[in-house]
Amino acid sequence: MAVVLYPGSFDPVHNGHLEIVETAARLFDQVIVAAMRNPQKGEPLFTLEEREQMITEVFAHLDNVKVTMFSSLVVDLARDVGADFIVKGLRAVSDFESELQMAQMNHAISGVDTLFIPSASEHSFLASRLIREVARFGGDVTPMVPPAVAARLDRKYGQARD
Amino acid sequence: MAVVLYPGSFDPVHNGHLEIVETAARLFDQVIVAAMRNPQKGEPLFTLEEREQMITEVFAHLDNVKVTMFSSLVVDLARDVGADFIVKGLRAVSDFESELQMAQMNHAISGVDTLFIPSASEHSFLASRLIREVARFGGDVTPMVPPAVAARLDRKYGQARD
Amino acid sequence: MAVVLYPGSFDPVHNGHLEIVETAARLFDQVIVAAMRNPQKGEPLFTLEEREQMITEVFAHLDNVKVTMFSSLVVDLARDVGADFIVKGLRAVSDFESELQMAQMNHAISGVDTLFIPSASEHSFLASRLIREVARFGGDVTPMVPPAVAARLDRKYGQARD
Amino acid sequence: MAVVLYPGSFDPVHNGHLEIVETAARLFDQVIVAAMRNPQKGEPLFTLEEREQMITEVFAHLDNVKVTMFSSLVVDLARDVGADFIVKGLRAVSDFESELQMAQMNHAISGVDTLFIPSASEHSFLASRLIREVARFGGDVTPMVPPAVAARLDRKYGQARD
Amino acid sequence: MAVVLYPGSFDPVHNGHLEIVETAARLFDQVIVAAMRNPQKGEPLFTLEEREQMITEVFAHLDNVKVTMFSSLVVDLARDVGADFIVKGLRAVSDFESELQMAQMNHAISGVDTLFIPSASEHSFLASRLIREVARFGGDVTPMVPPAVAARLDRKYGQARD
Amino acid sequence: MAVVLYPGSFDPVHNGHLEIVETAARLFDQVIVAAMRNPQKGEPLFTLEEREQMITEVFAHLDNVKVTMFSSLVVDLARDVGADFIVKGLRAVSDFESELQMAQMNHAISGVDTLFIPSASEHSFLASRLIREVARFGGDVTPMVPPAVAARLDRKYGQARD
Repeated sequence: MAVVLYPGSFDPVHNGHLEIVETAARLFDQVIVAAMRNPQKGEPLFTLEEREQMITEVFAHLDNVKVTMFSSLVVDLARDVGADFIVKGLRAVSDFESELQMAQMNHAISGVDTLFIPSASEHSFLASRLIREVARFGGDVTPMVPPAVAARLDRKYGQARD
Repeated sequence: MAVVLYPGSFDPVHNGHLEIVETAARLFDQVIVAAMRNPQKGEPLFTLEEREQMITEVFAHLDNVKVTMFSSLVVDLARDVGADFIVKGLRAVSDFESELQMAQMNHAISGVDTLFIPSASEHSFLASRLIREVARFGGDVTPMVPPAVAARLDRKYGQARD
Repeated sequence: MAVVLYPGSFDPVHNGHLEIVETAARLFDQVIVAAMRNPQKGEPLFTLEEREQMITEVFAHLDNVKVTMFSSLVVDLARDVGADFIVKGLRAVSDFESELQMAQMNHAISGVDTLFIPSASEHSFLASRLIREVARFGGDVTPMVPPAVAARLDRKYGQARD
Repeated sequence: MAVVLYPGSFDPVHNGHLEIVETAARLFDQVIVAAMRNPQKGEPLFTLEEREQMITEVFAHLDNVKVTMFSSLVVDLARDVGADFIVKGLRAVSDFESELQMAQMNHAISGVDTLFIPSASEHSFLASRLIREVARFGGDVTPMVPPAVAARLDRKYGQARD
Repeated sequence: MAVVLYPGSFDPVHNGHLEIVETAARLFDQVIVAAMRNPQKGEPLFTLEEREQMITEVFAHLDNVKVTMFSSLVVDLARDVGADFIVKGLRAVSDFESELQMAQMNHAISGVDTLFIPSASEHSFLASRLIREVARFGGDVTPMVPPAVAARLDRKYGQARD
Repeated sequence: MAVVLYPGSFDPVHNGHLEIVETAARLFDQVIVAAMRNPQKGEPLFTLEEREQMITEVFAHLDNVKVTMFSSLVVDLARDVGADFIVKGLRAVSDFESELQMAQMNHAISGVDTLFIPSASEHSFLASRLIREVARFGGDVTPMVPPAVAARLDRKYGQARD
């Protein structure tokens, strides 16, 4: 019975995240998707509650996926929820170095392992930051995010543009 | 008749930008240099109007270069000005990954292509951020920027230091 | 009237090459695809003549693409065929560094420029070396190469396996 | 019940491999370590049989690790042994790109997933190629390989030096 | 008589810094460790005075290490203190590119050289930013920083948590 | 009194090597340039004796540079010649990773340190392998190598072309 933790900001969740979670849900018994409050990166576009709602909708079709929120160290959360290890997606070299550094530090302070799931190449350019940028200028984000997220981005920025 | 778009922040324009535009102007029929308003990166050092003036001066010797400003998605600008494709300079690996990600996203949302022009190696260390830093501390930026830009940096920071 | 040169080994040509040439043929007036004899890399799988035949078939639908062979410096070929510049595809960071180095050297010894066309992400993992490996062990290469190339790989390795 | 496949050349197996297998054996139900015959890389230092013997000794303390050999596509082996997915170690950026490319190709031709286990940083410099080089010149490899491997390297090169 | 300058933010100093300075102190006659005021990166966690105190304590056992502070260009400081060159640590590719760019710019504006000392691999994941993050959430930083620094982090964040 | 060792293949020595040695000779008391016999890389273009002659000519103007040859581990040579540490040039990311790996392994097996000297950007594209390729096809290598080396390359390949 393998339980894995998939932490992130998910501001917003996009098709690249979806692909990683679908792979994890296929390979492991339970996947816990955890949105971090993450005050370090400055004000997020979506509140933690909005992000939790979107993630819950987007992963509703996957029976063995649970959604939670956290504002602690990810390794403490891993222990609290009984995760066997953490999973992270890997898209590109720049991802790799910072993720490897985090994985090594997390292992050093807690013994918790991190495994990496490579992004299928057609999603390798997706990043929440770029999606927010496209949506802010009224670009079409529907090929990049689930419909529920596209609708929320539209409401968020549509109001701002009106 | 190939028309290419060269977008950037140009805060300020430097010799690396100059080299890319001179190459593009030699290879293509028309080069449109576009300074983005770019509110994402926080307060720029130079206003958009100052940046436009500097770019206009710096490229005045190139007949087939036009200067413009924009505050929209770069792919929307590309269509509005009738550009066949976007050109970007490439200096280093870190450039490459973020630029490749942007190019792939821009292609996905609009079909607009991006081509990369490698920096000649003697300019590969130039970056507007480092030039602002050197100028702020009174360092000599004349080997790195056109004279008109050096003068403006001096005025900008000279006043601050007085 | 922009003429561009696209050099490579093409041992064999694959869908990633096809994508780059289709982009170049759309953006420029003429594309010259040149297969290098390339004795440096050891014995190729396909002879230069076989490679030329495959390339000619694969690009037959593109009116403004011409195929040639060469065994000289690529910058000498560029001058001989009247190319305005060289184009290369870029898939990943490891590509980027060696290609940038070649581009800088080519510019230094001849003044000929190189422009880079990024691979669309769904082809970014394709490499002739890996395709030969898959085919050698009887794996299915049809999603990665044009049908004419798959048939030739099958004949080449099918005989070896019989 | 998760079964994972860990393929490699293991010419020779070293402490970095050992660490990856110990992590995999802790996280998953069964780990199949598979040494590839790998005629592509030229003559290996150790024969496939020698490599299999060394791997068998080195992992003898891990009950849920099985050792095998293969000379087919790794994805065919994965299916034959009933592996849920492939695991690979990741040490550095250069690893990452070639491994990501292989993982994407393997997924494209077979649907088999690859997960990456990062090396603990104290082993990140280990590579069989460098260990062979050190041993060839009589350097001390005991901090880098299990004792059984050090003894075999010593016999292999000691004879050559005598 | 070689005098080298080791500049940084040191917010806070950690075991990776300690290792670099110990190497430099062994190889060169004098090492000047200089904490930069660094207003660019936003509010530091520790004041410049606190950082100077910590550095002074941490390097007290090294006779040929001197500590200073600066708020000028690092190349101006190098001249002022009579340093023969600058030394920087290198952990990873992302470090390398930005450090190489700084080194090339520093050489261009002043002629001052920079040499790089690679981090021993067991410290390659350490970064002040990640250490602050761990400490902020009450994680155990004692394997990563000298005891004097751990105590200060505890006081700084312990008060915040109370 | 700092003695540094600069090992390499030097097949042939080029302007990038020259720049590194001139920097090292300016910063340190003595520089020992050591050409390795290096049978691993296959047949070199120039014999070890030819390479030693070229290096000796090229560095004749530097009083504190000595030339030697070796066919042992570089760390054993470092001890034999009394070097305080090894210096290597760094041009690009791909250099960096393999050099960092070698430096970490060398430190692990012997305690000998390696310091890196970054290439000035105008030489960052130089590589002996590319220079041999250009010379082989009769391209002009005079901007990339000292005159004595250009003459030898010309003789070597001129005879082959006649």
